[in-house]
Amino acid sequence: MESLKQKILDEGLALSETVLKVDNFLNHQIDPQLMQEIGKEFVRRFRHKKITKIVTIESSGIAPAVMAGLMLDVPVVFARKKKSLTLTEGLITASVYSFTKQETNDISIAEKFLTEGEHVLIIDDFLANGQAALGLIDIVEQANATVSGVGIVIEKAFQDGGDLMRNKGYQVESLARIKSLTQGKVEFVEEQEYAQ
Amino acid sequence: MESLKQKILDEGLALSETVLKVDNFLNHQIDPQLMQEIGKEFVRRFRHKKITKIVTIESSGIAPAVMAGLMLDVPVVFARKKKSLTLTEGLITASVYSFTKQETNDISIAEKFLTEGEHVLIIDDFLANGQAALGLIDIVEQANATVSGVGIVIEKAFQDGGDLMRNKGYQVESLARIKSLTQGKVEFVEEQEYAQ
Repeated sequence: MESLKQKILDEGLALSETVLKVDNFLNHQIDPQLMQEIGKEFVRRFRHKKITKIVTIESSGIAPAVMAGLMLDVPVVFARKKKSLTLTEGLITASVYSFTKQETNDISIAEKFLTEGEHVLIIDDFLANGQAALGLIDIVEQANATVSGVGIVIEKAFQDGGDLMRNKGYQVESLARIKSLTQGKVEFVEEQEYAQ
Repeated sequence: MESLKQKILDEGLALSETVLKVDNFLNHQIDPQLMQEIGKEFVRRFRHKKITKIVTIESSGIAPAVMAGLMLDVPVVFARKKKSLTLTEGLITASVYSFTKQETNDISIAEKFLTEGEHVLIIDDFLANGQAALGLIDIVEQANATVSGVGIVIEKAFQDGGDLMRNKGYQVESLARIKSLTQGKVEFVEEQEYAQ
């Protein structure tokens, strides 16, 4: 998605070889027009899939997920993050290890919002090692619902989360795929723009 | 806002005299169409005010704030919640006491996203004692920016946050004002629908 890549080049900060800061338009300050374009692009890329619900994770996944949900006219559910859950009644949970924070958090969704037979599009802001997305897939499958696909705003393609999920057969669509962040410079994976 | 009130009557759960659960469309599962209507109504109610930025708080404020931001074509910034902040460099913070959780949390916004001279509309999902909204006002005013108004999805009018802010001279617009939650029944404050 060219406008997203341009925004990353203009406003993203490659803080290290693995850290890209995009708090100017996605993770802290949000650009609503860009979120709408992102939502539209997700809808286009998954247009052949049945989708009855969108699942994301708080907080930065919510804006792109709600924009896609608006266009598809389906509800959005965001998983909550908690250090560790004591009260889990009525919740479907998964453990997510964060390599950056080196800690495990539980994420959870109330079971009443994910029922058997639903077709779920998972949306998240970043994909690196894939732990968060795999946690969301785990939750959807615990509910006996179907994962229609995984939509990611920015994939760090030099980390293995994307391949991991594609190898498992999930359709993963990342709107910007980063090849490297060497010396403060963002390089994207060269790819043909996704066909109409 | 009649469609919101109807949604609360249909899907909200008055769990006690003070707790209203609306996780079916606002706090956990999100209804994107309703969020769009809510955004539109905020824009209408503050149409005479100058607004250059919207400020909200994670996570449930994000969806309505982004919809309003889309229509106003202004950026949205969400304050982050943290138990207590150790690294506060470059952050504007405020302490927020939660009566329900009986704990104090810091909320913060990077100072680069709030600058002097900005005109800020504050949006949040709930207003009860007003602690969160007052914390956001505090942050905006620390940045020497101007509070254009406070837009709330659901106000518990039987608690004093709304009056507190109105008495200080802020324009507070709540799209549904709840008078009581007695015996599992939601009653709204009777008021004329806001004039065109």
